[in-house]
Amino acid sequence: MFMFEKPHGMRDTLPGLYETKKRVRSTLIDVIGLWGYRFVETPTLEFYETVGVQSAILEQQLFKLLDQEGKTLVLRPDMTGPIARVAASKLLKQNHPIRVGYAANVFRAQEREGGRPAEFEQVGVELIGDGSASADAEVIALVVSALKNAGLTSFKISIGHIGIADALFMDVLGNEERAQVLRRFLYEKNYVGYREHAKSLNLSSIDKNRLLELLELRGGIETCGSAKAIIDCEQGKSAISQLEALWQTLGDYGCAEDVRLDLSMVSHMSYYTGILFEIYAENVGFPIGNGGRYDQLLGRFDHPAPATGFGIRIDRLLEALNAEDTQEKMDIVIFSTEQRVEAIQFAEEERRKGKKVVLQDLAGIENIDQMTKSFQNVTYFIGSRKEEQHG
Amino acid sequence: MFMFEKPHGMRDTLPGLYETKKRVRSTLIDVIGLWGYRFVETPTLEFYETVGVQSAILEQQLFKLLDQEGKTLVLRPDMTGPIARVAASKLLKQNHPIRVGYAANVFRAQEREGGRPAEFEQVGVELIGDGSASADAEVIALVVSALKNAGLTSFKISIGHIGIADALFMDVLGNEERAQVLRRFLYEKNYVGYREHAKSLNLSSIDKNRLLELLELRGGIETCGSAKAIIDCEQGKSAISQLEALWQTLGDYGCAEDVRLDLSMVSHMSYYTGILFEIYAENVGFPIGNGGRYDQLLGRFDHPAPATGFGIRIDRLLEALNAEDTQEKMDIVIFSTEQRVEAIQFAEEERRKGKKVVLQDLAGIENIDQMTKSFQNVTYFIGSRKEEQHG
Repeated sequence: MFMFEKPHGMRDTLPGLYETKKRVRSTLIDVIGLWGYRFVETPTLEFYETVGVQSAILEQQLFKLLDQEGKTLVLRPDMTGPIARVAASKLLKQNHPIRVGYAANVFRAQEREGGRPAEFEQVGVELIGDGSASADAEVIALVVSALKNAGLTSFKISIGHIGIADALFMDVLGNEERAQVLRRFLYEKNYVGYREHAKSLNLSSIDKNRLLELLELRGGIETCGSAKAIIDCEQGKSAISQLEALWQTLGDYGCAEDVRLDLSMVSHMSYYTGILFEIYAENVGFPIGNGGRYDQLLGRFDHPAPATGFGIRIDRLLEALNAEDTQEKMDIVIFSTEQRVEAIQFAEEERRKGKKVVLQDLAGIENIDQMTKSFQNVTYFIGSRKEEQHG
Repeated sequence: MFMFEKPHGMRDTLPGLYETKKRVRSTLIDVIGLWGYRFVETPTLEFYETVGVQSAILEQQLFKLLDQEGKTLVLRPDMTGPIARVAASKLLKQNHPIRVGYAANVFRAQEREGGRPAEFEQVGVELIGDGSASADAEVIALVVSALKNAGLTSFKISIGHIGIADALFMDVLGNEERAQVLRRFLYEKNYVGYREHAKSLNLSSIDKNRLLELLELRGGIETCGSAKAIIDCEQGKSAISQLEALWQTLGDYGCAEDVRLDLSMVSHMSYYTGILFEIYAENVGFPIGNGGRYDQLLGRFDHPAPATGFGIRIDRLLEALNAEDTQEKMDIVIFSTEQRVEAIQFAEEERRKGKKVVLQDLAGIENIDQMTKSFQNVTYFIGSRKEEQHG
């Protein structure tokens, strides 16, 4: 029946899931607030030229429409662009670092066969105006704290640096075009393809091994030592020392157990410029969130400033939490006209105690037993009687 | 600067307003929850054929786009249609009344000159499956309770019935086409135009007076008595007796002071079928919310059921509340590397107490005095010193 259909990738959230989602969202927002982030809302629709073009999301994933004057609008595909716009135009003053939070739906058109949601909620932060390593550490420590408070136990933050693969590829391959091929394998996490392609290249066996070694650069801080063995240029060394500093600060935050390095991490997000990270939870096939440093984006809004941030996907976090729908049993008061006043007063008293109470006119229901089945306590004010049934 | 622009009618919500809005929204949601309504979310995008066509919103106000298969989508212009879709497909079982709440943004394209928002948030309810007069009373009593809890003091709910003007116009004018002209004057609240047009009609002076009398039918329950003098048909009498029953029930709810009758009320919402109402607050030129009975809509989703509900516009409610932006002064901890551990621990302790604390690396700021100005308490962990300044 067409009447009941929703557009591809669009979902309803029914009451049980709604309450669970609300609780989890609220915890994330509370933690983010305690860390001094201030929340904003931005419009669902933005100009394509302002936010769509700047976005890291693939062109074909953008929902586009035309306004009455023929300008192209997009449904925001992420919140980083809109917040950069707001920060540049309204929030950034005298280059003080600002901390901005958001909880918002974003939109990405999906292939029909993929079965992925085309609209989903992200809760996240942007820390703008602070280029220090402490800022990178802060957003990672914050995401760890937020997830733990939300009840997530089995997760890891994989941390990389955009400069590692960049440095190695330029050093070994010499040009960006060849680097792009390998980068795509990494982005797709197609390590078999990466290996085969690396082996097929016309390179010395030493250089081939350096390319293959990159895939092994995963684990704790010792990974940085191994990286130094294959990466020699200034850009690479700088990236490694940033990771070392970050690791130490995360230790001070007590997050050492929650993070690991993955120096083969790259991103399709062309705006990332330094540290970047992905959040993996047990039993969920995709990252439940990600983030990183993007020091170039604010400049495109005429207000150059370093920046870093993260976004958590609520749908995937709920999957990771394996959270059950919240099944709340309410009370119901059923009345006939004779005792309407008494029923109203009784319901109001119960609500003042914080109880959720449905007040139902007997005249509005067909089958009283069917109706009351799903409620906890039932109180009748029928005719001249008052009668209580406790579930 | 184009980069900073937003599409016409689109707005940002900055932190001060965000917190105020959050508090007001949260109060409304809590009250609605206590009355036994369960909240749902529906997608921002719906099929035009499913929800757009059913909507009461004017065609030219719909934001439309095409999906990858060429089907027309709309940004939901209201929540009644989407909730009817969800109710019909998933929630309605055995025709029990169901109570559904929502807090959601809706979208209505605006004329450039109007200056009205094209995206705004509504908090509302739908009570589906209960055709009794108690259901009409419940949603009105609920909106009164929600608004009072939100802190609104000066407001009135204007209540009318779609059947009053319908009955009078059919009786006096005899055909729908002529009725439509007068109805439009009423909808636009152009009472001068209504009077002039009524006087210009080729009618007996008694009938002209009946048309003019309609405009006087405003006030308390005595209005129903006056209505009986000019309305004689079955449909009209039934509408009047529904209003009388409603008035009595609202008295039982203790809402008599918060409501008034306005029997000249009509609606552009073609789906209203009975009682309808608008919420007016002092100093706000437009209704801050509205609602009414729509007994035909669910049938279009293959599941006929009576229904009533309301929606409150958060932006207009905030205007009515004349609510100030929430100016929250946070604390800040500024550290240099030597005492990073101590600073982190101090910030965490403060946050555990519920304080909002920014933790800022000295290396990330240019001007320490400028940065700390907007904070309440400042604690420095610099070099070997710890120093506190209380604002």
